[in-house]
Amino acid sequence: MSKAIPYKIYLEEHEMPTCWYNVRADMKNKPAPLLHPGTLQPMTAEDLAPVFCEELIRQELDNDTRDYPIPQEILDFYKMYRPSPLVRAYCLEKKLGTPAHIYYKFEGNNTSGSHKLNSAIAQAYYAKKQGLKGVTTETGAGQWGTALSMACSYFDLDCKVYMVKVSYEQKPFRREVMRTYGASVTPSPSNTTNVGRKILEEFPGTTGSLGCAISEAVEVATSTEGYRYVLGSVLNQVLLHQSVIGVETKIAMDKYGIKPDIIIGCAGGGSNLGGLISPFMGEKLRGEADYQIIAVEPASCPSLTRGKFVYDFCDTGKVCPMAKMYTLGSGFIPAPNHAGGLRYHGMSSILSQLYHDGYMEARSVEQTRVFQAAEDFARVEGILPAPESAHAIRVAIDEAMKCKETGEEKTILFGLTGTGYFDMVAYERFHDGQMTDYIPTDEDLQRGFDGIPPVNL
Amino acid sequence: MSKAIPYKIYLEEHEMPTCWYNVRADMKNKPAPLLHPGTLQPMTAEDLAPVFCEELIRQELDNDTRDYPIPQEILDFYKMYRPSPLVRAYCLEKKLGTPAHIYYKFEGNNTSGSHKLNSAIAQAYYAKKQGLKGVTTETGAGQWGTALSMACSYFDLDCKVYMVKVSYEQKPFRREVMRTYGASVTPSPSNTTNVGRKILEEFPGTTGSLGCAISEAVEVATSTEGYRYVLGSVLNQVLLHQSVIGVETKIAMDKYGIKPDIIIGCAGGGSNLGGLISPFMGEKLRGEADYQIIAVEPASCPSLTRGKFVYDFCDTGKVCPMAKMYTLGSGFIPAPNHAGGLRYHGMSSILSQLYHDGYMEARSVEQTRVFQAAEDFARVEGILPAPESAHAIRVAIDEAMKCKETGEEKTILFGLTGTGYFDMVAYERFHDGQMTDYIPTDEDLQRGFDGIPPVNL
Repeated sequence: MSKAIPYKIYLEEHEMPTCWYNVRADMKNKPAPLLHPGTLQPMTAEDLAPVFCEELIRQELDNDTRDYPIPQEILDFYKMYRPSPLVRAYCLEKKLGTPAHIYYKFEGNNTSGSHKLNSAIAQAYYAKKQGLKGVTTETGAGQWGTALSMACSYFDLDCKVYMVKVSYEQKPFRREVMRTYGASVTPSPSNTTNVGRKILEEFPGTTGSLGCAISEAVEVATSTEGYRYVLGSVLNQVLLHQSVIGVETKIAMDKYGIKPDIIIGCAGGGSNLGGLISPFMGEKLRGEADYQIIAVEPASCPSLTRGKFVYDFCDTGKVCPMAKMYTLGSGFIPAPNHAGGLRYHGMSSILSQLYHDGYMEARSVEQTRVFQAAEDFARVEGILPAPESAHAIRVAIDEAMKCKETGEEKTILFGLTGTGYFDMVAYERFHDGQMTDYIPTDEDLQRGFDGIPPVNL
Repeated sequence: MSKAIPYKIYLEEHEMPTCWYNVRADMKNKPAPLLHPGTLQPMTAEDLAPVFCEELIRQELDNDTRDYPIPQEILDFYKMYRPSPLVRAYCLEKKLGTPAHIYYKFEGNNTSGSHKLNSAIAQAYYAKKQGLKGVTTETGAGQWGTALSMACSYFDLDCKVYMVKVSYEQKPFRREVMRTYGASVTPSPSNTTNVGRKILEEFPGTTGSLGCAISEAVEVATSTEGYRYVLGSVLNQVLLHQSVIGVETKIAMDKYGIKPDIIIGCAGGGSNLGGLISPFMGEKLRGEADYQIIAVEPASCPSLTRGKFVYDFCDTGKVCPMAKMYTLGSGFIPAPNHAGGLRYHGMSSILSQLYHDGYMEARSVEQTRVFQAAEDFARVEGILPAPESAHAIRVAIDEAMKCKETGEEKTILFGLTGTGYFDMVAYERFHDGQMTDYIPTDEDLQRGFDGIPPVNL
């Protein structure tokens, strides 16, 4: 029995999820454990304790608990910006002339502008609960840093953000949003850490890198009383928190008797895709339903479609644990494309395992086609998408156009992770015809693995 | 009978307003008519036809029809971003420790980032219905231009925006959003009009003004086949369309048995305040209810609190009709404060009449106190407000703190018109302690009336 479907489905407060869903509980092949970079042995809770909060370590290592009750304090915060709307893209369907039904879950309706807030508030909560004074992190494009600064402000927790220097200077607006929320934002490399000072000495003119910013943030967390380090993607705990996206989506779809045939999400480190697909993947793993699940990545940084499934460092600085994942090699330097959130050499271990086991597929797309999709979408659906999100729009439109050819009335669901307000420089390049596509050669890809020790487990 | 009140009240589709409410129908003293600047006679529909669309002229001159059914095409577009949430500011109340109940109607949850879209889509619709090819307008800070470009894109209408040159250069992101929606954006003054060429000849280095941009937009509209000029505030028609804000708010409050004691809105030209208060003011005018209604304006541009209630030009270029309103004089040049949307010398004739007749009050506030309120609000409620909206937040907090002193449990409603994503330069100045307050002297105010002919009607 299906009801008339509104443009936007908002759950009422009493319908909202009260648990996160841990997809690992339903995986036969569990994601491989993190390894200590020195001993190459699985990281224990004790190994991780100087870096991460206790409860987050428990979540990170827990492959068994299926449902995690969301603490009331986090539910209260979620109420301020959730539920996010599940939108029926009636206008896009009409413009494409497709028989497909297209839905998107829009996570940009909060000041941080993206889904990152779902995990930021959880990580800030557990840090506060542990009695910590503050947390440190790095940020590149700035979505994660913004979300974390909002979360820390809410729990009155100190927040130290190391922002890649080139972004700090080129994206002053992001920086000011973080300052509005009381975060201290330091351009990286900086003089505030040993690793920063060392890099500045060797390369005085450097504009920084994510790898360096991670190293600085970790150094401060581990050397300052009452601080820990937090991360916005890749980790199992992050996918757990982000499952709220998928659980909400599934409740809303079930309410109206809608069943997606295809589920699409952009994938950088995997936080959004992993969250969106979680409960659907759970049904698929348990053999209760089937869905076509597609991860979309930039052609310039194709970890799933052209990477290797091996143990690698999570950071380019090689200070963090090693993870088994689809990776281009921690030495891979992606071309400066405009989807900063997708410029990551690896991929969540959970998603890597699921992809390896055939539960999902992957596509890579070039950025000019991505921006064309972004503009087409904005003009009919109103929302100005982030470049990252537009990767999913591109493939959703491609799939809808296939339906037009075949006459199939498929139901397509995609994740619209955020807004593009702080990405207008990229749009400007697109409008002015100055945007280029870059596809790495096989030789480029091989160089990413230089200096990485082979690990076979 | 009141139900438990959620953080955010969203109306369901079947509860949404289907009519705009025309407050003029309930006013005993109607707003004074627009006058022809040459003859000083009331403007007729024929006089206005070369400039405005036919249906919009009918709405502009209609002081009698109370309810205007909203055309289905506009209702369909409203469904894409409306209802806007009515939010109970639980976190702000807690932080202030006030017994007051605070609610805000948030109009920033759409890509244009403000309430301006409510009227933009209506004006674009009537232009399309009349068979026009396109519309012209001016924009300063860019909220109106962005909203209009989105609306024109939806109806496949050409959109020519004259953007004050200094904003065009300093706010390239706003410009790129408009281009994403297919608008042509021209820095004003430009070589595309007679008036622009004349000004450039006289003042080659000028960075432009709103008055000049209006003149260029009107010249293009009246001299190009199939084009008309549209405006985002001040006019009666705009307040009619914006009544959707207030009508939605009232339906949501009635649903939960909430009755506001105080209603607060920022006021530049009056589009937001007029829309928010409309149905409440209607009850007040008909003697069915009483509300304390407060217009908030910048101390640097205090048209209600320090202006005169006289006939004046609507534009600094003196090419548009004259309106009877509270005004600082069309020659008044406001200090460069950071709430571009409130830097207008006059005020809607409807609101001016209501203020003159004692149905509402007005307060002026200084911008550093406004930004302090903006930051306090952002940190607990999550939303990063536009500087304009923060004027209303300032007075809402002030009123809530009075309740704390007296112990009164008043219900306060304010309009949160938009987001501040494109105003981070202002926030940066505030963070860096570089923001100054400016209050014009009586002599400054007198200069605004130089050269304006006295009109007594």
